[in-house]
Amino acid sequence: MLARVQRVAMNRLERSLVTGQILPYLITVVAVLAVLFAVIMRLVDREDYPSLGLALWWSVQTVTTVGYGDATPVQPFGRAVAAVLMVLGFASLSLLAGIIASALIARRRASEPNETLVAVERLERRLDEIERLVRER
Amino acid sequence: MLARVQRVAMNRLERSLVTGQILPYLITVVAVLAVLFAVIMRLVDREDYPSLGLALWWSVQTVTTVGYGDATPVQPFGRAVAAVLMVLGFASLSLLAGIIASALIARRRASEPNETLVAVERLERRLDEIERLVRER
Amino acid sequence: MLARVQRVAMNRLERSLVTGQILPYLITVVAVLAVLFAVIMRLVDREDYPSLGLALWWSVQTVTTVGYGDATPVQPFGRAVAAVLMVLGFASLSLLAGIIASALIARRRASEPNETLVAVERLERRLDEIERLVRER
Amino acid sequence: MLARVQRVAMNRLERSLVTGQILPYLITVVAVLAVLFAVIMRLVDREDYPSLGLALWWSVQTVTTVGYGDATPVQPFGRAVAAVLMVLGFASLSLLAGIIASALIARRRASEPNETLVAVERLERRLDEIERLVRER
Repeated sequence: MLARVQRVAMNRLERSLVTGQILPYLITVVAVLAVLFAVIMRLVDREDYPSLGLALWWSVQTVTTVGYGDATPVQPFGRAVAAVLMVLGFASLSLLAGIIASALIARRRASEPNETLVAVERLERRLDEIERLVRER
Repeated sequence: MLARVQRVAMNRLERSLVTGQILPYLITVVAVLAVLFAVIMRLVDREDYPSLGLALWWSVQTVTTVGYGDATPVQPFGRAVAAVLMVLGFASLSLLAGIIASALIARRRASEPNETLVAVERLERRLDEIERLVRER
Repeated sequence: MLARVQRVAMNRLERSLVTGQILPYLITVVAVLAVLFAVIMRLVDREDYPSLGLALWWSVQTVTTVGYGDATPVQPFGRAVAAVLMVLGFASLSLLAGIIASALIARRRASEPNETLVAVERLERRLDEIERLVRER
Repeated sequence: MLARVQRVAMNRLERSLVTGQILPYLITVVAVLAVLFAVIMRLVDREDYPSLGLALWWSVQTVTTVGYGDATPVQPFGRAVAAVLMVLGFASLSLLAGIIASALIARRRASEPNETLVAVERLERRLDEIERLVRER
């Protein structure tokens, strides 16, 4: 399941890179995680989170690893959900940084002229000429 | 709008890399975000942030994802502004890491000699010699 | 010791990349660190952490750099353990981001056709033909 | 000044990569920043930080962006010092991730055989043979 989430995330990032919009993509990833876990938390730990607004306030500060600590869960189940979101936030941060680096490098390489290939193709035209000469004599 | 911010950020980073000064660039990005959101927060949530100094103390600890939690907003509008800054801090962290990695790799590649290109150019001079020989006979 | 930990971590990541599953790998790294330090903390600072559950709640929010601050140690030895985990969390974040970027780029390069190599091999076949021609005359 | 710090940091990382020890390097960077700022904080804000131990407890949780918030400064000068360390922690995180990615890729490329170069050198030996043939006829 996790491998599929990762694959979908990478494919979408690739597409967002084509249009040059990584920042909107990043914001969407964080927002989706925050809303999803606010809903889960509201369902799992109604005692610590009497409103969805408070659950959302908690999930945003958790997934972004800010962690003010003014809306933390006390119930064991709530803390288990929180632990999952913290790990996902941490993993997303390093994964997104790595994906962006890799994608930016690929884009840069695709746009740069390949000097060596150009030189090899020049060689190819020289061989045409030499072959013609050899055939003539 | 976000795509333009990203493009400006990347262009400036490229230029800062030419002079080898990424650290000043990074500090500027964080400082600009912190000051901007301190002013916004002071305007939006005057109740939680009676002074600009307190708003600045909050924005710095939020955008850097430190999040002490000793100056957090309580008003709904204040929390909405805080959520935006947290997401921007998180997104900037992964985006900046990716941009720096990509830019450092590009700079390294540009400064390294291209061994293959050198070998191809050596081949080219050999072909000159062979063509001359073929023409002579 | 640290160099060996790093080597093991990188080798496992390489293998996890072959199957395309970085996210499960990342989650495992964080979970192992969290459980390990919860046990250490429980042994070192029994006063601040009367239960393993509380120690685990502390270690997860510390290694992920979230840091709610609702279960922080007060005893000097506990704070020393906490300092080590904070530094490890910070170091892991940048190291994992760097390893992922490097591994993704390597994978991408291995899967992309090497246009220059293809062109060089085409040249090689042209030389076969030219050599044959030269021998015939 | 910042540019020089960055240059020194990158050079040392390069050397640490030769021996394959990035993790010790990362830990040293964080430890140096933490000790340095603990001393500065202790000198600047004696009111909030009556002991060096407390200042160190604060600086470690700040530079790693954990930010428990149980030892935050209240005095304006103390908060200014804290703001600088938070920004440095954030900047270091993205910079270190970028540097590590770039260095790992460079190391990998240096250790991989350059297939294209090998093919070009094979071409070179073919040309030797062809030139000999042309001279003989």
